[in-house]
Amino acid sequence: MPRLSSLPARVKIVEVGPRDGLQNEKAMVATDTKVELIHRLCDAGLSVIEATAFVSPKWVPQMADASDVMACISRKPGVTYPVLAPNLKGLESAIEAGATEVAVFGAASESFSQKNINCSIAESLDRFRPVVAAARDANIAVRGYVSCVLGCPYEGEIAPQKVADVAKALFDMGAYEISLGDTIGTGTPGKAQAMIDATAKHVDIEKLAAHFHDTYGQALANLLAVLQMGVATIDSSVAGLGGCPYAKGASGNVATEDVVYMLNGLGIETGIDLEKLAETGSWIAGKIGRQSGSKANLALAAKRDTVGA
Amino acid sequence: MPRLSSLPARVKIVEVGPRDGLQNEKAMVATDTKVELIHRLCDAGLSVIEATAFVSPKWVPQMADASDVMACISRKPGVTYPVLAPNLKGLESAIEAGATEVAVFGAASESFSQKNINCSIAESLDRFRPVVAAARDANIAVRGYVSCVLGCPYEGEIAPQKVADVAKALFDMGAYEISLGDTIGTGTPGKAQAMIDATAKHVDIEKLAAHFHDTYGQALANLLAVLQMGVATIDSSVAGLGGCPYAKGASGNVATEDVVYMLNGLGIETGIDLEKLAETGSWIAGKIGRQSGSKANLALAAKRDTVGA
Repeated sequence: MPRLSSLPARVKIVEVGPRDGLQNEKAMVATDTKVELIHRLCDAGLSVIEATAFVSPKWVPQMADASDVMACISRKPGVTYPVLAPNLKGLESAIEAGATEVAVFGAASESFSQKNINCSIAESLDRFRPVVAAARDANIAVRGYVSCVLGCPYEGEIAPQKVADVAKALFDMGAYEISLGDTIGTGTPGKAQAMIDATAKHVDIEKLAAHFHDTYGQALANLLAVLQMGVATIDSSVAGLGGCPYAKGASGNVATEDVVYMLNGLGIETGIDLEKLAETGSWIAGKIGRQSGSKANLALAAKRDTVGA
Repeated sequence: MPRLSSLPARVKIVEVGPRDGLQNEKAMVATDTKVELIHRLCDAGLSVIEATAFVSPKWVPQMADASDVMACISRKPGVTYPVLAPNLKGLESAIEAGATEVAVFGAASESFSQKNINCSIAESLDRFRPVVAAARDANIAVRGYVSCVLGCPYEGEIAPQKVADVAKALFDMGAYEISLGDTIGTGTPGKAQAMIDATAKHVDIEKLAAHFHDTYGQALANLLAVLQMGVATIDSSVAGLGGCPYAKGASGNVATEDVVYMLNGLGIETGIDLEKLAETGSWIAGKIGRQSGSKANLALAAKRDTVGA
């Protein structure tokens, strides 16, 4: 593979299905099912599984059982279970529930920040500062998210430098990793590279994660583009859980199965058992009453049926 | 876009929806609808539209109206309308119907050739030789297809050299362009590059087309990988028409809309109006009673609805 020789040898997958995924699905999922999902993902070899969110149940009813989920999961050594904790109240509850890693969520788009959390980007960063400090005081690792890195539903294109600034701010305040989210999935490979280029000038590329959505079908191509630059952490969601809240009926998170299929083909290690992962994807898709959002999964299932017939 | 600077400035899209696509859809489509589809694609800026196939209606009932389709389309200057013509009888009918370009179809997999056309690869090439010669005598351009270039439903992986050999044979007998088909969509970017590498040693890369299926969600990533090598012709199907006959329920051809969306983002010229193309995709998906297989199309439509709401 001469021309793709600069790819990383190993990629860390951050599975966001149980939180980011289920939070954006219409169907309410029982706590037991969430717990089983996390256990199955762990069994399939995932080493980072975003478990739940400590947020207001008024705004996010899907995550109202956050403490129960955390209480019921059997934690496997070597696996981390980050949770979303956007403020001090959330952080307290997360710590009480035994979380060892939390995530905070900034935006690279001024209008998105205003419409989504009702404050400017600068104000949101000011609010995160005490959360990150308190987390680190409690020996809790913090992951920073930046949304709208390749486009905003309100203002369209986002300048790469905007992303770099927010990523730097989150990193400087103590986040150990920055996940760069193409929230509306409008990015294409060249733009993804330009965004990583600008951001990696301020935060080491090993500290950056690609969190790309497949809304326009571009996620794997965008991932391939940034893998070639040395990005080695990818966020994805089993069965493509989580739609796109900014385009009802469209897809959101890239499916973990599709990512792992590509990485396997490229000879990049992930430690994940694709067969077990795909079974988990089919199972959770059944639980929420829709088809899996993973093409690799549908193809594997169809092949099984065809061979079995 | 520093790292993707070796991309072609312009890409030719070969639209295969009306033939390869509709041939693999369960729904039978009226001749009028096929003709309107071709006209709409032409209006959206496609310059090569595979129109139909002159094959046995016993085996491929979907293409039984090939002569009618050719008689009814209004041909636009500068646009070509290739048709499939696998044998002399097909070629005669194609010429009679006014075709100016035909395509023949070889396989890179011995078992696929045996099971699909009941002869070895070498025998199939022997059968094509008089067809290509007769076509060229009649001043008809010939496009060669090679199937199973990144995997075979019967024997799995295919050696890149096998693909190169068949491509070379078709080129040497007079085909002006060789379309390399990942028939079952199992390819990944590194393997796609290795296959192009081997083939481009025998046939100039400007004469090669990538015909990649999205069965495992890999098509755009694979296309990005070979665009970086200089491949500048891509086969795709509006609305992702055409399923995967080797994995029922799975997807097949990559959707033209998704390809054009990526190319637009990369600043690569295609001459295609994405908005008109997407409208055409929605329209034909409605005609065959299923959702469009293009994520870009679904996202654009959802955005329209959301903005309109």
